[in-house]
Amino acid sequence: MKFIHTADWHLGKLVHGIYMTEDQREVLRQFVELVEEEKPDAVVIAGDLYDRSVPPTSAVELLDEILFKINVDLKTPVVAVAGNHDSAERLSFGSSWYRQSQFYLTGKLTNDFQPIHINGVNFYLAPYAEPGIVRQLLQDDTIHSHHDAMKALIGKMEETMNTNEPNVFVGHAFVLGGKTSDSERALSVGGSGCVGAELFESFSYAALGHLHSPDALQHEKIKYSGSLLKYSFSEANQKKSVSIIEMEGNGSFTIRYKSLKPKQDLREIEGYLEELLDPAFYEKQSCNDYLKVTLLDEGALIDPINKLRQVYPNVLHLERKLELTDAKTKKTFISIKEEKKSELDLFAQFYHEMTTSEFTQDKKEIMADVIEKALKEEGAR
Amino acid sequence: MKFIHTADWHLGKLVHGIYMTEDQREVLRQFVELVEEEKPDAVVIAGDLYDRSVPPTSAVELLDEILFKINVDLKTPVVAVAGNHDSAERLSFGSSWYRQSQFYLTGKLTNDFQPIHINGVNFYLAPYAEPGIVRQLLQDDTIHSHHDAMKALIGKMEETMNTNEPNVFVGHAFVLGGKTSDSERALSVGGSGCVGAELFESFSYAALGHLHSPDALQHEKIKYSGSLLKYSFSEANQKKSVSIIEMEGNGSFTIRYKSLKPKQDLREIEGYLEELLDPAFYEKQSCNDYLKVTLLDEGALIDPINKLRQVYPNVLHLERKLELTDAKTKKTFISIKEEKKSELDLFAQFYHEMTTSEFTQDKKEIMADVIEKALKEEGAR
Repeated sequence: MKFIHTADWHLGKLVHGIYMTEDQREVLRQFVELVEEEKPDAVVIAGDLYDRSVPPTSAVELLDEILFKINVDLKTPVVAVAGNHDSAERLSFGSSWYRQSQFYLTGKLTNDFQPIHINGVNFYLAPYAEPGIVRQLLQDDTIHSHHDAMKALIGKMEETMNTNEPNVFVGHAFVLGGKTSDSERALSVGGSGCVGAELFESFSYAALGHLHSPDALQHEKIKYSGSLLKYSFSEANQKKSVSIIEMEGNGSFTIRYKSLKPKQDLREIEGYLEELLDPAFYEKQSCNDYLKVTLLDEGALIDPINKLRQVYPNVLHLERKLELTDAKTKKTFISIKEEKKSELDLFAQFYHEMTTSEFTQDKKEIMADVIEKALKEEGAR
Repeated sequence: MKFIHTADWHLGKLVHGIYMTEDQREVLRQFVELVEEEKPDAVVIAGDLYDRSVPPTSAVELLDEILFKINVDLKTPVVAVAGNHDSAERLSFGSSWYRQSQFYLTGKLTNDFQPIHINGVNFYLAPYAEPGIVRQLLQDDTIHSHHDAMKALIGKMEETMNTNEPNVFVGHAFVLGGKTSDSERALSVGGSGCVGAELFESFSYAALGHLHSPDALQHEKIKYSGSLLKYSFSEANQKKSVSIIEMEGNGSFTIRYKSLKPKQDLREIEGYLEELLDPAFYEKQSCNDYLKVTLLDEGALIDPINKLRQVYPNVLHLERKLELTDAKTKKTFISIKEEKKSELDLFAQFYHEMTTSEFTQDKKEIMADVIEKALKEEGAR
């Protein structure tokens, strides 16, 4: 039995103000091709299909189109659950119809803990739900944390589980020990939101969503597929992929990873402004990539972002190295409410903000001269 | 061939701050019963399934539940289009799957003008679309008004229409001469938004949505079903119903109207406060109805809304008759920015706002006395 495990599509995602929809469309086109080639028995999507509860209509149309191709055109069963970014109720609309063509979409957690049987494997679906929702659903006042909630849900699943068949868990959770990135929204304010890996023992494979890296967790059978694309610069060095699992009747499996190639990569570059603007450097680069640029220059720079964007149109974030090294000793902005200062004091402050050098006595004298002349000219007008 | 024509469900509607979802649920429960009894060949919903493009999740769940009962449990084909309150794109999600069980939901207007054939009748679906959308879709720069757009769309339908069979138009529009109420959102800012009745000549029946009264238009074959419930007090005297059409092979038809009974009616009452609070009066009333109360009292009344709500908990709107009769000569609120006035002047103004009597010289003298005493007491403290 073969299934493809993916998650965290985040359709409709904005990264630094840029809609990723066209990038997602391209990668999903490749995903549909992969399904066509691999002919899996099922495609599993472990939550966060959308980036938010009310996604933009372009994202709604894209999801509709892609899932229809996979499920109806390619006749591939689809197993999908809501993640913490999805609206459980909105995603649930129509799911009763979808089941008729083996599209098993579970937005809202219900009291039905029966698995979906596909070609010898039982898929147990656990859409993302807050502990409070699980507490209410199961009428169990001892549920307070995500760990408690997951334990109770899996307990329900285990009540009727056939352990002689392979059982696969499909859910959206933060398993203890997983590595986070900047684009995952914390599951819990305050508490950890974590669930213990030991909960998944009765499953042959846990197909998880939430963490964005395919190797977020080193565990032999609890796996994150990782997100569809890099959704933050903290993911710049991650290799994104979808997982192809081939499972035997005894639950043992092999796993292959297939990378999907986005039109534009999302990555970080670092250097001196002049260096980055030098054709010898940039001609070797994919200049259209989404970039975070870190400039090493120490002195003041005039409008570096616009200069960079002439060469790299998709600079999404610009940082100065010096801001990182001595940010603590500096304020970034001059407050306009500060008490009146002399021109020389103001310049000293500006010099300090813009450079890493000292505003020495020599420099001070030169500047004082300049200011004096300027003020005289002003007075003479 | 028998079909039921309904429209303007407006699920998720707020009327004077009250969610109508539970009222809608009750009436839709009756609607499902009606479908069960009548066993129509199709249910036609002519737009405004939801009240807004992003409806509350309770409305999403209600629509899902009701349509599933009708379409899947009762195996009744459903033909539905988006209205001006629906989001064409959001409503479209999943519609490719729904077609497999004869649920024909058209959210977004497309270039496909082929009808849906159900038991000898061709249903032509025209979801609501702005003239600009139709202009773009048909690449026809002469389209400026709703009338132009409808004419062009129907022209496309007529190109391949089989006039030997009954053809039914399903759409959401404001046909010239229709009577409006307060709860229909105007289709057009500025222009009329109207379309001429002559456009529908080639159809045996036009199943329309948008106007909320079943008799909004007196036309032998262009019909509004009216809304599911009364959604504004301007509809208080309308009789709401759904239409049951039985159509012959030549397109002739008979029509019956079936009323659905809401838990609470929405109506207007008028009288003196004392009268309305008299058990002899209110014991004969359905006090839980949604009410607009018009008080005939002329003098000042202390907190009449709360007194009324002790008896009629769902007073949604309170009016004073006097405000209507001489509103033009009065201001409703005293501006707090007005120049400083004497206590007597302020009272005279208050008296004028609150009553219809004259503030005579006698009254003025009595009041002046009272004020004087009060001020003296104040000064003595």
